[in-house]
Amino acid sequence: MDVYMHAALEQAELSRAEGGIPIGSVLVHHGKIIGRGHNRRVQNGSVVLHGEMDALENAGRLPAQIYRESTLYTTLSPCAMCSGAIILYGIPKVVIGENQSFQGEEEWLKSRGVAVEVMQDRSCIRIMSNFIADYPELWNEDIGV
Amino acid sequence: MDVYMHAALEQAELSRAEGGIPIGSVLVHHGKIIGRGHNRRVQNGSVVLHGEMDALENAGRLPAQIYRESTLYTTLSPCAMCSGAIILYGIPKVVIGENQSFQGEEEWLKSRGVAVEVMQDRSCIRIMSNFIADYPELWNEDIGV
Repeated sequence: MDVYMHAALEQAELSRAEGGIPIGSVLVHHGKIIGRGHNRRVQNGSVVLHGEMDALENAGRLPAQIYRESTLYTTLSPCAMCSGAIILYGIPKVVIGENQSFQGEEEWLKSRGVAVEVMQDRSCIRIMSNFIADYPELWNEDIGV
Repeated sequence: MDVYMHAALEQAELSRAEGGIPIGSVLVHHGKIIGRGHNRRVQNGSVVLHGEMDALENAGRLPAQIYRESTLYTTLSPCAMCSGAIILYGIPKVVIGENQSFQGEEEWLKSRGVAVEVMQDRSCIRIMSNFIADYPELWNEDIGV
C-alpha cells in the first residue's frame, strides 16, 4: 500500500478505535499530506463529516489553485456528497481504497473530468466489511438508507 | 415570500451580520423547520459548512425516513457538494431562492429525481448580488474559483 493510502487507513483505524465508522481520507498536495480526516458521525454527531469532508475541513481554507494540484485519498468509494465536494473544489484526482463495500459516484466524477483510481486494497475491504457486518444500522444511517 | 424561504433568508441575513457569506437554508419536515443553517466559511473557517450543509448538520442525526419526507429551502442554487448531500440523504424536494447569482447542480438533482423549484426572489437576489459585488474574492473561494 502506498504511504498516502496507508495514512488514510490509519485515519479509518483511528475512527474505529473511537467507536466510529472506519472511513479515512487524506488530501495530498505535491506529495505532502495537508489534511487528514475520518468519519465523525458517532464521535461528533455529524451528518456531514464523512472521512473525505473531514480531511477537507482539517486542511482549512485554501486557494483554489491548491485544490487543483491535489489528490484526495479515501479508504472507500466517495458518496454523492463527498464526490460533490471534490467537484466543487476542482480536485483533479481521487484514489479510492476499495469500492466493493460501497459504490459511490465514481461515474459522475469521471464524467466531470476527475481521474479515479481504485486500489481494491485488502485492508480497506476488511475494516469496512467487518464494520458493516457488525453495525449494519449505523452504516445504513451514514449512507441515507 | 413563504414562511420557509423567509426563514432561510433570515439565516442569510444573520450570516451577513456576522461578517459571513449570506446564504441560508432550512430543512422542513411535515411543515416544521427541523434544521436552520448558514454559510460558515468566515465564522468557523469551514470549507464544508455551506448554508445547506449547516442546516443538515444542525438538524442532527435523523432516520432516513425523515429526510425522505422533508424539503430543503435554500436562498441560492445548491453547489455540487450541497446537491450531493441532498442526493445522499434522499431529500425529495429543494426550493431555491434564486439561481441568477450562481447556477448550481439543478440539472443533476432533477436527473436523480429531486423536485427543484426556483423562486427568483428579489430579496435573495439582492443580498447575494450585493455581497458578490463587495467581496468577489471571498465568494470565489466559496465556490472553488
